[in-house]
Amino acid sequence: MKKLKRSARLVEMTQYLLCRPHTLIPLTLFAERYASAKSSISEDLAIIKEAFEEEGLGELQTLAGAAGGVRYTPKISKAVSLAILNDIRQQLEQPERVLPGGYLYMSDMLGQPALVNEVGKMFATAFADKPLDVVMTVETKGIPLAYAAATLLNLPVVIVRRDNRVTEGSAVSINYVSGSTKRISTMSLGRRSLKEQSNVLIIDDFMRAGGTIQGMIDLLREFRATVQGVGVFVESAEVDEHLIEDYVSIAKLTGVDPKTKQTTVLPGSYFQLDLK
Amino acid sequence: MKKLKRSARLVEMTQYLLCRPHTLIPLTLFAERYASAKSSISEDLAIIKEAFEEEGLGELQTLAGAAGGVRYTPKISKAVSLAILNDIRQQLEQPERVLPGGYLYMSDMLGQPALVNEVGKMFATAFADKPLDVVMTVETKGIPLAYAAATLLNLPVVIVRRDNRVTEGSAVSINYVSGSTKRISTMSLGRRSLKEQSNVLIIDDFMRAGGTIQGMIDLLREFRATVQGVGVFVESAEVDEHLIEDYVSIAKLTGVDPKTKQTTVLPGSYFQLDLK
Repeated sequence: MKKLKRSARLVEMTQYLLCRPHTLIPLTLFAERYASAKSSISEDLAIIKEAFEEEGLGELQTLAGAAGGVRYTPKISKAVSLAILNDIRQQLEQPERVLPGGYLYMSDMLGQPALVNEVGKMFATAFADKPLDVVMTVETKGIPLAYAAATLLNLPVVIVRRDNRVTEGSAVSINYVSGSTKRISTMSLGRRSLKEQSNVLIIDDFMRAGGTIQGMIDLLREFRATVQGVGVFVESAEVDEHLIEDYVSIAKLTGVDPKTKQTTVLPGSYFQLDLK
Repeated sequence: MKKLKRSARLVEMTQYLLCRPHTLIPLTLFAERYASAKSSISEDLAIIKEAFEEEGLGELQTLAGAAGGVRYTPKISKAVSLAILNDIRQQLEQPERVLPGGYLYMSDMLGQPALVNEVGKMFATAFADKPLDVVMTVETKGIPLAYAAATLLNLPVVIVRRDNRVTEGSAVSINYVSGSTKRISTMSLGRRSLKEQSNVLIIDDFMRAGGTIQGMIDLLREFRATVQGVGVFVESAEVDEHLIEDYVSIAKLTGVDPKTKQTTVLPGSYFQLDLK
């Protein structure tokens, strides 16, 4: 195609890899794209690999052989994760977030794409090695987190609806008990939204008792799907018992006092994972 | 901080800029970060600028002076936009998408993060020069498009709800007539979600007559906000009259026949803009 200097090639290959996470890219593609020898491409990749690892951007794996190539796996370091947690904590502990009933206002935080994308990186790090076909969430506030994780994991997203919209075609509906309100609600997923026997990562913004996530797990049973992981942004420790045992949380609320407007935020279970 | 070779610096600066669109970055930041002279940093930026422009990734502007620096504005070229439109058209014209009543199933397309991010790039290109404070959408299906655009425009997102959830605090609600169902519905936005007098970009997935978008415009009047632009992914030309005049669409449906299951898709108004 076009002959480029190493410097220009490095810039282009960096952006190419960053835009295509969890994708095996044959070295011949780069060699043809930049009219360069495979040996030059290999040297470029070694430079990029070192810089990515130095910066804590993730791993660059090179697979040898005819079916080989290079694959970029985005990961975030423990140090950067802790810095982001610190920012999250400071925001969550602002007294003006405490609403009547001990609810916590979080919509503005979930409206910051930069923060959402960082949290998505944490989920992409935690679930990088799971065999996954799809990321699932329930409307509304978990949606940006699900897309942020799915972009980095190179997976499609399915959104469970709280109603049954006409534009979805035939759908499967189930009833579930929301842990916070104790009300029976309905959630539904279009038949054609999810292939049978998919491997699913569930992402949501908030978990109290876990009724909504248990509802998603029950719904997935109707599709004979396997839940490979559950990731929640903020969990509340203010419940006697969680319905869900195995999940990754980023932050944990241990005290929301409607009177004093004080909130205490601890690191979630993500920080107990074996991170670098 | 750390002394890097030019090759490693180029990789790091490329990813640093790609992650921080529409942000003025002082050259001193790079100079300190890589323990390099400003003149070397300027040379690096010239290489990156050329590669970005060559690849159609957007513009890199260098502003001179004490308050100067470099700013990356993501843009997508007309040629790449047309290639993506072609993919969108092929998907939209699949006969199995046509649902009873002439509705079109699009959820799977909006569940592809790669496609969503490309459409977000088109919106970020179309509205790059507008003075914007925030991107707004209404739940549910427009949300990923709004975040994709907002990430590239470096803006927060506010989501208008179709109900009034307890976790939002006090809210402003309005009634609107949905163009497709002719029913009166309610949409609401938390008082603290949007500052008064904000400059707003509205993004949605689908527009028939425009009732939902007109509802958002009416709602914004309550916040004394200014609508600086409206972007919709797919518009239907199968209406006598649009309530909205000034909007950017990516694709236009001109025929959805429930009997023959045939759909015709044309380029949207985005392709009439003065694109490079």
